[in-house]
Amino acid sequence: MSSVSNFKKIAPIDGLSALYSDAVAASERIAGQIVKTPIVVNDELDRLLSARVLLKAETLQVTGSFKFRGALNRVLRMTEEERKGGIVAWSSGNHALAISTVAARHGITATILMPSDAPRTKIEGAQRCGGTVRLYDRATEVRETIGAEIAAATGAVIIPPYDDLDIMAGQGTVALEITEQAREQGLALDMLAVSCSGGGLAAGCAVAMHGASPQTRVYCVEPEGFDDTARSLASGRREGNEAGAKSLCDALQVATPGELTFPVNQALLAGAVVVTDAEVRRAMRVAYDLFKLVVEPGGVAPLAAALAGKLDVAGKTVALVLSGGNVDHDKFAACIAG
Amino acid sequence: MSSVSNFKKIAPIDGLSALYSDAVAASERIAGQIVKTPIVVNDELDRLLSARVLLKAETLQVTGSFKFRGALNRVLRMTEEERKGGIVAWSSGNHALAISTVAARHGITATILMPSDAPRTKIEGAQRCGGTVRLYDRATEVRETIGAEIAAATGAVIIPPYDDLDIMAGQGTVALEITEQAREQGLALDMLAVSCSGGGLAAGCAVAMHGASPQTRVYCVEPEGFDDTARSLASGRREGNEAGAKSLCDALQVATPGELTFPVNQALLAGAVVVTDAEVRRAMRVAYDLFKLVVEPGGVAPLAAALAGKLDVAGKTVALVLSGGNVDHDKFAACIAG
Repeated sequence: MSSVSNFKKIAPIDGLSALYSDAVAASERIAGQIVKTPIVVNDELDRLLSARVLLKAETLQVTGSFKFRGALNRVLRMTEEERKGGIVAWSSGNHALAISTVAARHGITATILMPSDAPRTKIEGAQRCGGTVRLYDRATEVRETIGAEIAAATGAVIIPPYDDLDIMAGQGTVALEITEQAREQGLALDMLAVSCSGGGLAAGCAVAMHGASPQTRVYCVEPEGFDDTARSLASGRREGNEAGAKSLCDALQVATPGELTFPVNQALLAGAVVVTDAEVRRAMRVAYDLFKLVVEPGGVAPLAAALAGKLDVAGKTVALVLSGGNVDHDKFAACIAG
Repeated sequence: MSSVSNFKKIAPIDGLSALYSDAVAASERIAGQIVKTPIVVNDELDRLLSARVLLKAETLQVTGSFKFRGALNRVLRMTEEERKGGIVAWSSGNHALAISTVAARHGITATILMPSDAPRTKIEGAQRCGGTVRLYDRATEVRETIGAEIAAATGAVIIPPYDDLDIMAGQGTVALEITEQAREQGLALDMLAVSCSGGGLAAGCAVAMHGASPQTRVYCVEPEGFDDTARSLASGRREGNEAGAKSLCDALQVATPGELTFPVNQALLAGAVVVTDAEVRRAMRVAYDLFKLVVEPGGVAPLAAALAGKLDVAGKTVALVLSGGNVDHDKFAACIAG
């Protein structure tokens, strides 16, 4: 099981203070249109982990995941002229729901490319929100290519799910909010852990913590089979995942870390941790039993890592992001059945 | 289907302003030891109901239900001497979880009488929290009698689930908090609906609203087969339920409205509404799909009533309390399966 924490840090990347300013600006830009999601705590979980654990329930965010923050921040930066041409985006689901909803709220057309094996709740949700969904086959089609063709034909603006500075800044507002909420309770965070796919949430939060709470160590958590960031941090270059890997975490399956996100994560993350499907299922049951929250597999990865003893939380004040809750009924029922 | 709204109001009961002061005092007493539960909203639900709907997620309260508020308020009013003798309480589950947890936090022993058919998650939860659970048979044993015997033998203080002024005041803090949260968003509430069993939450909230937001009409919602409050409001006296009735809502099954709660509800409620198991299941699915929240059958009754068109919400600003989330895995899975 890969767990990386002593990888060679590169020199501080350029523009870090500008990225932090972007996150602070994003926070002001999106306030009032997002949910300031609650921190939830539980005595029993704290006893179990010998830690003070703050769970950030981004499952209660608009569209059921943190993705709404980045999508909203990016769309609010579009010019009037750009808005007329619409948006094209690709996503395993949560970015699709977010873009569809933001676009609908602002009267912009949106075409979304989603893998044909995405959860029904995500595909139908994006359609209900008014997005035009185009399904593609992950095995044989390249979503970036299809997206570029649509953009060229229609004049639409491409909004990728993570490799975009405005998206990263929007996701970073999660960490700014957690820091503020912890301080309101008189707490300083020793650690923050977030799920990692393309690395937008990790990079955004790492930048935000670097500026707002530099003593907080930020970890990313990936599912087995899709530990590209962990291996990339170890090797020092962007590694890909083996074809054909399977994971319960539909939201955390990318081919390789992002071009923009990886250098930030390489500079700022304290480590990367990998969790198994069984660990993810256990964490979903704990979230159900102790918090009455529906968390999707990809959203529960940091809690899974803590419960599996893969994050060194004992004696610490730790924030774990529950990043999304969009999971089909049958899959959720199977996961909590134990 | 009973739905009562034009029952004969009795004259204002004595001591209403004292009850309101009790709720305000409870709010100050329990602050810092409870979760200030979030209000959650959803564009799609608002469109569906043509209303502005604020859901109060008491599922995220300590022990997963509003019952923690009343239990904490009552225990904080015990003298040092009383605390030494311990507590005896009876409950279908949520009051048991609340009393066990409050007692454990304050180093007080607690004996809890629970029906043998209570959900496993509630029985095991009360045990894990350190409560001594004594199961009884709802068909053949009377919990009040067993409780009185234990109190007489041990010197324990009886803390009943609803028929107690400190319990009512504690539950009333739900309404005080909703009113404050709505005002922070610039909203005034036209309506508040809460689940009703013995009537403690309804009475507490009705008193609180009468004092803090008198224009807000307060409704209680009961499950089919246990519509004792609706029928009692109609007849003007405390009616019982027929023996042998069944309902999905394990938390909302009492024999008759409370002695203390009913006169308050009679004086202050705007009406009572009754929902079916099918309507409850639909609301559980909606809470899952749109809010990613686990809500137990008895906790979702107000949302069920709104979705079934049994509350006149159109065009209004409406608060619905999701009062608890303690439901066994298999039951929840069956309910959301559709």
